[in-house]
Amino acid sequence: MEKTVNDCPGYRFAALHCGLKKDVQPDLALIVSEVPAVAAAVFTTNLFPAAPVIYGRRQLAAATPISAVLVNSGNANACTGDQGLVHVKQLAEGLSSVLSVPEEEVFISSTGVIGEPLPVDIIIASLSRFPDLLSSSALSAAAKAIMTTDSQPKTCSVMLQLSTGEVHICGFAKGAGMIEPNMATMLAYLLTDTEVSGSRLQEMLKRVVDKTFNRISVDGDTSTNDTVLCLANGVSGCSLATEADEKAFEAGLYQVADELSRMIVKDGEGATKIVEILVKNAPDRQSAEQISRTIAHSLLVKTAFYGEDANWGRIIAALGYAGVDLDPGQVDIWLGDVRVVAGGQRSPDYQEADGAEVFRQDSFTITIDLHVGDGSFSLLTTDLSHEYVSINADYRT
Amino acid sequence: MEKTVNDCPGYRFAALHCGLKKDVQPDLALIVSEVPAVAAAVFTTNLFPAAPVIYGRRQLAAATPISAVLVNSGNANACTGDQGLVHVKQLAEGLSSVLSVPEEEVFISSTGVIGEPLPVDIIIASLSRFPDLLSSSALSAAAKAIMTTDSQPKTCSVMLQLSTGEVHICGFAKGAGMIEPNMATMLAYLLTDTEVSGSRLQEMLKRVVDKTFNRISVDGDTSTNDTVLCLANGVSGCSLATEADEKAFEAGLYQVADELSRMIVKDGEGATKIVEILVKNAPDRQSAEQISRTIAHSLLVKTAFYGEDANWGRIIAALGYAGVDLDPGQVDIWLGDVRVVAGGQRSPDYQEADGAEVFRQDSFTITIDLHVGDGSFSLLTTDLSHEYVSINADYRT
Repeated sequence: MEKTVNDCPGYRFAALHCGLKKDVQPDLALIVSEVPAVAAAVFTTNLFPAAPVIYGRRQLAAATPISAVLVNSGNANACTGDQGLVHVKQLAEGLSSVLSVPEEEVFISSTGVIGEPLPVDIIIASLSRFPDLLSSSALSAAAKAIMTTDSQPKTCSVMLQLSTGEVHICGFAKGAGMIEPNMATMLAYLLTDTEVSGSRLQEMLKRVVDKTFNRISVDGDTSTNDTVLCLANGVSGCSLATEADEKAFEAGLYQVADELSRMIVKDGEGATKIVEILVKNAPDRQSAEQISRTIAHSLLVKTAFYGEDANWGRIIAALGYAGVDLDPGQVDIWLGDVRVVAGGQRSPDYQEADGAEVFRQDSFTITIDLHVGDGSFSLLTTDLSHEYVSINADYRT
Repeated sequence: MEKTVNDCPGYRFAALHCGLKKDVQPDLALIVSEVPAVAAAVFTTNLFPAAPVIYGRRQLAAATPISAVLVNSGNANACTGDQGLVHVKQLAEGLSSVLSVPEEEVFISSTGVIGEPLPVDIIIASLSRFPDLLSSSALSAAAKAIMTTDSQPKTCSVMLQLSTGEVHICGFAKGAGMIEPNMATMLAYLLTDTEVSGSRLQEMLKRVVDKTFNRISVDGDTSTNDTVLCLANGVSGCSLATEADEKAFEAGLYQVADELSRMIVKDGEGATKIVEILVKNAPDRQSAEQISRTIAHSLLVKTAFYGEDANWGRIIAALGYAGVDLDPGQVDIWLGDVRVVAGGQRSPDYQEADGAEVFRQDSFTITIDLHVGDGSFSLLTTDLSHEYVSINADYRT
């Protein structure tokens, strides 16, 4: 498995500025597959899914192949009711006509402000500019066009050697705030030239997303628009012929998803640190997850990360209100490889200077060992900085 | 019911600096009741209760009357194990000897940094200074001595006319951060000269706390030390003889607790706004509470309050991931008296300028009407400012 350039056989990309963003930044991205691609997807669990999420769920349920994906930034087309769905259909119609592909093979995503009507006319007026822009090497440009508060585009690709030949997986994603993709994720697109069935692809994608995008959290807010779409156009002519091929392919998918999800956390709004919250030996996986999310959401824990203050009392306070039945006298906590809590109390050999050294690192792990069962969960999160407040106090202005 | 001066017959107060705080600010407070008082209390639900909470729970379970309450700030005596409990007992012994009251009638509270051993010697060495300082008019001084990040002391008192005569209720509290007193609260002391039984007082206190301290949230972090203690020394000679007396007394207790809890929110770390999150017509009270807490905890909602940006999309996104089964198409949302969402979508007559005007106020209400049942809950919360981050990034330094 080795890194290749940022493209994938049988796919072309394009980006342009249609006017959704106030400056001249690109705000419209397009992916086109040479041949209709098998699709798998995971969507937000938010009860107010955006119009393109509702529309996309229907497409995936119908097992329609996908030939084109249009993504706009600057407007989420969320909480826009029936009109929002009409707009999605208008975009699919428009792109179908410009690209000469069936309307049902056009997939739409949106990201940006929630609740504003989508200015569909300015998007439709720009669609005819796309054919001249399409290029197999424009993946980075597309990744840039879907950014909102992201500071940089997020792309990743791998090449795999299967028993049937050489295949590729590339991906791109956006996300920096409203990041708590619980059973879903932010916008991410994973593309491959492998031959694989839709049902197999869906199973693999679900498993991979659970281990990657579903294990990151910036601010605990689950978006209305989260989508991971995976396309497989099969142009390599290489299928998953053996069990080893399946494993290699899923591992490749995992690698791309894992790198993209880490890029999202690293680009977390205002983030200065990346911290892994690892909960071990909990009653079960679910309680381990509940504890890691409670700690990752604690404003006091997050500001202590930012202040490089190894104030472990805040971690133990969050553990104590996480709602999980545990034995306080059994709890061990490690900051990096420094044990700070042993049996629910300050460890006798803990030195404040050792904890402080861990907190000064850009990236470290906090391990909570409950010693009661075999459930574990690991979550990647960020600190809470002045910059996060600035970004989000002024987001729409 | 009218306001009186800040004291209560039969109680004296004192405050001093013993050295727990780095500067010369008072860090030790004492309440003494002339005669042993009936006591009721509510404690934190955190699974890592501080040593004085463990000790106090035993006292209350034994229905011991209370004659003296010692409170230190600067150190929480939490996660300090058996040694922490030994320290509590040493403080009770020391104060018992200085005041000539039975050791079991001394109640201890602590607040401050979690996990550091309590410097018990410097407290004990200071206890002998207390008798000369005791005064019936030093309630404000005591309220000041229990402050941590509070910007001002929080006191409140009322006088009530019962059928049996005139009684008083006074109270003081501390708290500005780690505020999410779910079924418990921060440190608060409610004192009365009314004659009332312990069991009656406990019932009333529980009801009052559920409607006051349990309905505020600054940062969603439930402390290890939350305590509300209510003492009734009966020196007025006035009992609750009639049902009207009971109602009047509970209403007075509610008034004092309500004012103190509002003072805590208003003094929320870095808070520039107080916002009431009112959820109406939810499936039941519990889901209404879950929604209001989810919205109050959302970093994106809190930073929008701070930025005076009526970004209601963040409110609806939080509503959508609150984990409550609801009908998105039925939801109405009001910012103050401006309806912004009708039937799950932007209200046709909503004007951005109207929402902006509400968000510019120092204090306003957000109402979420689910139209599905009759459960309701109201929570008072704050915004999230740069100042909150500054206070908590640098708390221990």
